[in-house]
Amino acid sequence: MSDNPSFVLRAVEDVIYEDRPIPEIFDDEVLVEVKKTGICGSDVHYLAHGRIADFVVEKPMVLGHESAGIVSKVGKKVKNVKAGDRVAMEPGATCRICEDCKRGKYELCPDIIFAATPPYDGTLCRYYRIPGDLVYKLPDNLTLEDGAMMEPLSVAVHVVANIAGFRSNQTCVVFGAGPVGLLCMAVAKALGASRVIAVDIVQQRLDFAKNYAATETYLPPSFQQGESRMEYSQRNAKQMREQLGIEDRGPNAIDLVIDASGAEVSIQTGILIARTGGTYVQVGMGAPEVTIPITLLLVKEINFKGSFRYGPGDYALAIALAGQGKIDLKPLITHRFAFTDAIAAFNTTKAGKSPDGKGVIKAIISGPDVPLNEY
Amino acid sequence: MSDNPSFVLRAVEDVIYEDRPIPEIFDDEVLVEVKKTGICGSDVHYLAHGRIADFVVEKPMVLGHESAGIVSKVGKKVKNVKAGDRVAMEPGATCRICEDCKRGKYELCPDIIFAATPPYDGTLCRYYRIPGDLVYKLPDNLTLEDGAMMEPLSVAVHVVANIAGFRSNQTCVVFGAGPVGLLCMAVAKALGASRVIAVDIVQQRLDFAKNYAATETYLPPSFQQGESRMEYSQRNAKQMREQLGIEDRGPNAIDLVIDASGAEVSIQTGILIARTGGTYVQVGMGAPEVTIPITLLLVKEINFKGSFRYGPGDYALAIALAGQGKIDLKPLITHRFAFTDAIAAFNTTKAGKSPDGKGVIKAIISGPDVPLNEY
Amino acid sequence: MSDNPSFVLRAVEDVIYEDRPIPEIFDDEVLVEVKKTGICGSDVHYLAHGRIADFVVEKPMVLGHESAGIVSKVGKKVKNVKAGDRVAMEPGATCRICEDCKRGKYELCPDIIFAATPPYDGTLCRYYRIPGDLVYKLPDNLTLEDGAMMEPLSVAVHVVANIAGFRSNQTCVVFGAGPVGLLCMAVAKALGASRVIAVDIVQQRLDFAKNYAATETYLPPSFQQGESRMEYSQRNAKQMREQLGIEDRGPNAIDLVIDASGAEVSIQTGILIARTGGTYVQVGMGAPEVTIPITLLLVKEINFKGSFRYGPGDYALAIALAGQGKIDLKPLITHRFAFTDAIAAFNTTKAGKSPDGKGVIKAIISGPDVPLNEY
Amino acid sequence: MSDNPSFVLRAVEDVIYEDRPIPEIFDDEVLVEVKKTGICGSDVHYLAHGRIADFVVEKPMVLGHESAGIVSKVGKKVKNVKAGDRVAMEPGATCRICEDCKRGKYELCPDIIFAATPPYDGTLCRYYRIPGDLVYKLPDNLTLEDGAMMEPLSVAVHVVANIAGFRSNQTCVVFGAGPVGLLCMAVAKALGASRVIAVDIVQQRLDFAKNYAATETYLPPSFQQGESRMEYSQRNAKQMREQLGIEDRGPNAIDLVIDASGAEVSIQTGILIARTGGTYVQVGMGAPEVTIPITLLLVKEINFKGSFRYGPGDYALAIALAGQGKIDLKPLITHRFAFTDAIAAFNTTKAGKSPDGKGVIKAIISGPDVPLNEY
Ligand SMILES: NC(=O)c1ccc[n+]([C@@H]2O[C@H](COP(=O)([O-])OP(=O)(O)OC[C@H]3O[C@@H](n4cnc5c(N)ncnc54)[C@H](O)[C@@H]3O)[C@@H](O)[C@H]2O)c1
Ligand SMILES: NC(=O)c1ccc[n+]([C@@H]2O[C@H](COP(=O)([O-])OP(=O)(O)OC[C@H]3O[C@@H](n4cnc5c(N)ncnc54)[C@H](O)[C@@H]3O)[C@@H](O)[C@H]2O)c1
Ligand SMILES: NC(=O)c1ccc[n+]([C@@H]2O[C@H](COP(=O)([O-])OP(=O)(O)OC[C@H]3O[C@@H](n4cnc5c(N)ncnc54)[C@H](O)[C@@H]3O)[C@@H](O)[C@H]2O)c1
Ligand SMILES: NC(=O)c1ccc[n+]([C@@H]2O[C@H](COP(=O)([O-])OP(=O)(O)OC[C@H]3O[C@@H](n4cnc5c(N)ncnc54)[C@H](O)[C@@H]3O)[C@@H](O)[C@H]2O)c1
Ligand SMILES: [Zn+2]
Ligand SMILES: [Zn+2]
Ligand SMILES: [Zn+2]
Ligand SMILES: [Zn+2]
Repeated sequence: MSDNPSFVLRAVEDVIYEDRPIPEIFDDEVLVEVKKTGICGSDVHYLAHGRIADFVVEKPMVLGHESAGIVSKVGKKVKNVKAGDRVAMEPGATCRICEDCKRGKYELCPDIIFAATPPYDGTLCRYYRIPGDLVYKLPDNLTLEDGAMMEPLSVAVHVVANIAGFRSNQTCVVFGAGPVGLLCMAVAKALGASRVIAVDIVQQRLDFAKNYAATETYLPPSFQQGESRMEYSQRNAKQMREQLGIEDRGPNAIDLVIDASGAEVSIQTGILIARTGGTYVQVGMGAPEVTIPITLLLVKEINFKGSFRYGPGDYALAIALAGQGKIDLKPLITHRFAFTDAIAAFNTTKAGKSPDGKGVIKAIISGPDVPLNEY
Repeated sequence: MSDNPSFVLRAVEDVIYEDRPIPEIFDDEVLVEVKKTGICGSDVHYLAHGRIADFVVEKPMVLGHESAGIVSKVGKKVKNVKAGDRVAMEPGATCRICEDCKRGKYELCPDIIFAATPPYDGTLCRYYRIPGDLVYKLPDNLTLEDGAMMEPLSVAVHVVANIAGFRSNQTCVVFGAGPVGLLCMAVAKALGASRVIAVDIVQQRLDFAKNYAATETYLPPSFQQGESRMEYSQRNAKQMREQLGIEDRGPNAIDLVIDASGAEVSIQTGILIARTGGTYVQVGMGAPEVTIPITLLLVKEINFKGSFRYGPGDYALAIALAGQGKIDLKPLITHRFAFTDAIAAFNTTKAGKSPDGKGVIKAIISGPDVPLNEY
Repeated sequence: MSDNPSFVLRAVEDVIYEDRPIPEIFDDEVLVEVKKTGICGSDVHYLAHGRIADFVVEKPMVLGHESAGIVSKVGKKVKNVKAGDRVAMEPGATCRICEDCKRGKYELCPDIIFAATPPYDGTLCRYYRIPGDLVYKLPDNLTLEDGAMMEPLSVAVHVVANIAGFRSNQTCVVFGAGPVGLLCMAVAKALGASRVIAVDIVQQRLDFAKNYAATETYLPPSFQQGESRMEYSQRNAKQMREQLGIEDRGPNAIDLVIDASGAEVSIQTGILIARTGGTYVQVGMGAPEVTIPITLLLVKEINFKGSFRYGPGDYALAIALAGQGKIDLKPLITHRFAFTDAIAAFNTTKAGKSPDGKGVIKAIISGPDVPLNEY
Repeated sequence: MSDNPSFVLRAVEDVIYEDRPIPEIFDDEVLVEVKKTGICGSDVHYLAHGRIADFVVEKPMVLGHESAGIVSKVGKKVKNVKAGDRVAMEPGATCRICEDCKRGKYELCPDIIFAATPPYDGTLCRYYRIPGDLVYKLPDNLTLEDGAMMEPLSVAVHVVANIAGFRSNQTCVVFGAGPVGLLCMAVAKALGASRVIAVDIVQQRLDFAKNYAATETYLPPSFQQGESRMEYSQRNAKQMREQLGIEDRGPNAIDLVIDASGAEVSIQTGILIARTGGTYVQVGMGAPEVTIPITLLLVKEINFKGSFRYGPGDYALAIALAGQGKIDLKPLITHRFAFTDAIAAFNTTKAGKSPDGKGVIKAIISGPDVPLNEY
């Protein structure tokens, strides 16, 4: 291979390896040699559909945004890292001058340059250019794979610590036990949750959750003939209450509901089981429109919030929680692929399992020429 | 008439005047001679349907809960008022020992005794017994009618000051220009709003709003054939943006959306026009379930909250804002009825106008033997 | 002994056992048979001086306020406990109607009835009458001694979780390693502190802290001849920074400083070492007036707060953290006394050690006729 | 005069006009032609002492930092203003990448480049280079002098709206009726304060305050022989309570105390009169160390905070409040000087009055060749 081999999406289901020029860096930037990249649903979505909402792939775009690597070059104003440092890479460079950037909500910056969101290239390449303050030195006890996992972990930290303001001894229910849901459970646990209830429609994912960070699991019932979604959700909520001893107030109530499934019935059920005065955070993106029991939300004065990507402090907290051993990221990495097998990583993630039947939580693609077992 | 004449709902559309015993008070209570009572949609609803949600009128119940009066007797532990004081009456007596009562969210108390919510009697009587800390002395420049208006004004204060945390120079849109919506506009204005946009489907109500507290008004378009509610709302939001120059960020963005209409299309439109990082508060109670654009709510990280009744400090702030002349309640009182004509007040409120065609904002019923023009 | 033997302070250094009548309870109260009572500095202070600030013992007063016991009788409105339940007792009954009680800051209630604060009797007796919502059922894995420790633990929970809003991965320094300081360290640790630095002028206390909940300890230097207190504190802060690698910003900065010593030099040093934008909480009560470096506090925009007793949710969180094993209270109980030896418990606490030289952290007095080794 | 005439401080009391090169701008910067500059205590302090704390003038430095002007050139990335726009200039350019910059507290940035704080040049020149996002277009109804006043007004907005979170109907006391104190009063009033009590030792300043934004004024008594500062403050607080009817709780209590005098006795008195559970903000910088009644601060759980310069949103709110007519800045401008008379402006500010005896609140220096009466 060449200087800067890159895995490029040209059109729907059309990817190719290209040799791109090695980027020049500005004084406040660093050049990172990318070593490990996780694949997430959005990468797969771009490959399959060429777009997500209004973000359309109109020219060839390098894929990948969950990455860690080794600093290769440092701009002369950069102080926080030096060449050779192992770093996690935060993949969104914001404008720093808009109202949201300045008031501490940079995840809302309208001018964000986000890796592998059109028209910006992603990190599945050898060399990636990034502002110096967006790389975070990894502690020695974390691997580069852990470093790549900081991206989804930061999504979860943003949900639980930042948006929900979760506190020790609170309880939570997480709908959806994919990578994002599992990491939300892990963060809640790390922050001192007294109960973490995992909900998924796939028993295997619940089993995983139970071994990982959930204190309890719940498998929703099947739909009944003729039932509306809301009727189903009412029945589902009732069953959850009975099965798990959930109440509206007091220590058996649910302080925080997180939806990481995107399913309408999860959202409905979540509002139905949240405590009076409780918090609900939506992180899952599914149907763009859903029906919610709004009068109930009103009389319970539920605080219903959206959580988008990550903001100030999220990466730092993610690395700290992992570095202190409060969150173990290794069990989540179920599959590993060479750079030259990137397409297999996408296919496996899309299928939800590898040909051998093993369920995927997170597939990691090594950087160009990086061995699978070198972390 | 007798000692404690009371206006009692016995069954759907079945009311009668009864003479009830004068209540005995405990040491921490006061007895109030009720002078003025406003009629609200919920009173009318009980009369027409005998129930609201799970609250069912199963035995005769005195109606009315928006009242002011004169203290007639004071329990010996009561310090804040004395006999003869003109007072506004907060109609919900809470348990004071539950978690919500103790943490400053008493509006969520599960054991609240709320006037004219079954099975508890309301205030349309001569003598009403109430905990001493729930009556608030009126400043001299406020009338007893103003005092009765403190109930809906406190609902609005709770929405705008307490739940939304509205601040000076912010902008807001209020859907629904009934008494609750108008008072939300008035509170926003009093707190320093730079823009208060009123939205209603009735032009007359918009005209009223414009004269009262709105800086701008907006009349939504009619539905088009074959259009779904969400399609309508998208079109409505687009038109609002164009007509009013609303943007997603910056000084032309909407910091706070309040729905006081309960209409699904208002709720949808509200989410569509709220600023990135903005706040939305639901106070209107209409269809119990509505469809919302949840992915948009997520990516804008909107803080979507319910507001229920009023909590600590709301009555005090309501009285202060009115007493300082920042909110004028008089224009809202469009109709006045004698105690013996209570049924006419209900009918007029239900019809939305009096036989002479005059639109109702708020109808006030005087206490037994209290002249209409004695405030 | 008799029905309700009580340990009564009559005047400075003048205590006696009296047989008091068994209290009658109201419907919302419970009668508790007191089993274990911890002794704190304020109890000792009343014995030695007959007053604390404006609180003067003017008539005989039962001492003690850190207690747990077994519910003996329950008023008919009480739902949260039943006779026979083992409970921790929150010793301050508030008015429930003042502004502070209603807005969730009941620790500030001006009409609080606090056990063993004149003129109100304390808990060193057999039977103590208390509002039902102020007793908290202990989980099975906590002892009655743990229950008595909930009082000082709630002081610490109030400081760290409530007033400081401490979050996972933050750092803190605690000045003073007495019971209050040690419990603050334990709470900070339980909430996920990445560093807990204990400071005390007694090496033995630092050793205890290190074994208990501190990650690091620091022994301040001695005063130098001619040095002012502020000069000393400057030198002390400089030494702390060097010795512990403390910086003004970033992960090596101190997010939270707690003073639980009451010493002026601790307060000064604390402000000097707190991070830019950090939080400082004063819980120690020593000299009523101290000199602080205010311009530094200003340019660092430090949030400097007082913490008084405990408020809504503090007892519940204290019990949860102990019940979940995140805080171990047993090591703190260094001495145990029979009810009939109460005076020895006071003397030992005052001396700081028992005749055998063993340092006191917390001395516990059993209830009347309760064996020392029955928890 | 020449291209970029500048008023330069070379050493203590040694200033000179120099012709400096016109700065080149980067793409994200603008060049402003400075039209009006206010003089503040710190400018005068540098002239008189050559330093403030650790900031020492070691090489020639242009003075001035409270400025407004007209945009002369715009970098190609700048979107918010164009050449010819009248703008207020925020004089602190922050690093944008440190933790504090990113979490919305940029006033704490350690790498801030602040005009006329050594070693950085100030704004008393014809052309000043500044990041584009730090200039704010003035509404048409504000003058360039108003624009220069946005700097001290933003200090006050930061204190009252941002740090104190002041809300409508709250009460406040402001110690010190110089420009900063007066503007704090004006902001409190604009945000809906029900009482604004001005305290100063100069009757003339109180008279000014009363005409400007205070609802009441208070002149502290003289010291008595042999009295300590704290004794004086106790007496002073007692007298304030009596004279102004100040209580510890309820509507007659003081929600917010602001010290803008820097005087130790103000700080002490302020803590003594603040309400239980109240807020105290220190903005005045006087003696670096002061003695405070800390036990009282503790039992009242006062939130005691420092306020430094201004942060996100402060300039925008300052301009909005002035633009909406809620704050009138004109009365504060008592003196005007030509650029060539800059030294007279400094001397007048230092003396506190002009030779004709007129007291100074704010002296404004026009830009080079700008007439005094051109706003
Ligand atoms: N907000 C953000 O910034 C952000 C960032 C990353 C991912 N996301 C979103 O988070 C969601 C989760 O991501 P992921 O990678 O974990 O996806 P995933 O598809 O691996 O996991 C979703 C899980 O939800 C479960 N599920 C589906 N329907 C369910 C139902 N009715 N009840 C309970 N569980 C149900 C699925 O079985 C699956 O295990 C996705 O919608 C993704 O788009 C959001
Ligand atoms: N949350 C609470 O504690 C609380 C308390 C009191 C009232 N409420 C609720 O607040 C709401 C308002 O009360 P009110 O007394 O002002 O009622 P109202 O019926 O007088 O006012 C509602 C207004 O909404 C307007 N409206 C209806 N459809 C609309 C649409 N699609 N777009 C814009 N405007 C529309 C109507 O024309 C009317 O003017 C009610 O739903 C009521 O139940 C809630
Ligand atoms: N705010 C409240 O509600 C509340 C409640 C209970 C106790 N308190 C106060 O908390 C403080 C601590 O209580 P405690 O029971 O742990 O007391 P304690 O006397 O056992 O502990 C104080 C510790 O501070 C140490 N100390 C003294 N000077 C020091 C210095 N210069 N530097 C560092 N350490 C120093 C002492 O050696 C001792 O270990 C007391 O002042 C008490 O009055 C406050
Ligand atoms: N925190 C910040 O970012 C910031 C920014 C600008 C100014 N400042 C500081 O704010 C303070 C006020 O600035 P200014 O320009 O208004 O100054 P100023 O000197 O014009 O005003 C101070 C006022 O305090 C009065 N005063 C003095 N002693 C008093 C006492 N014992 N009681 C009551 N009043 C007393 C004086 O008579 C004077 O009117 C200064 O200390 C200044 O350094 C701070
Ligand atoms: Zn931005
Ligand atoms: Zn309650
Ligand atoms: Zn109280
Ligand atoms: Zn910075």
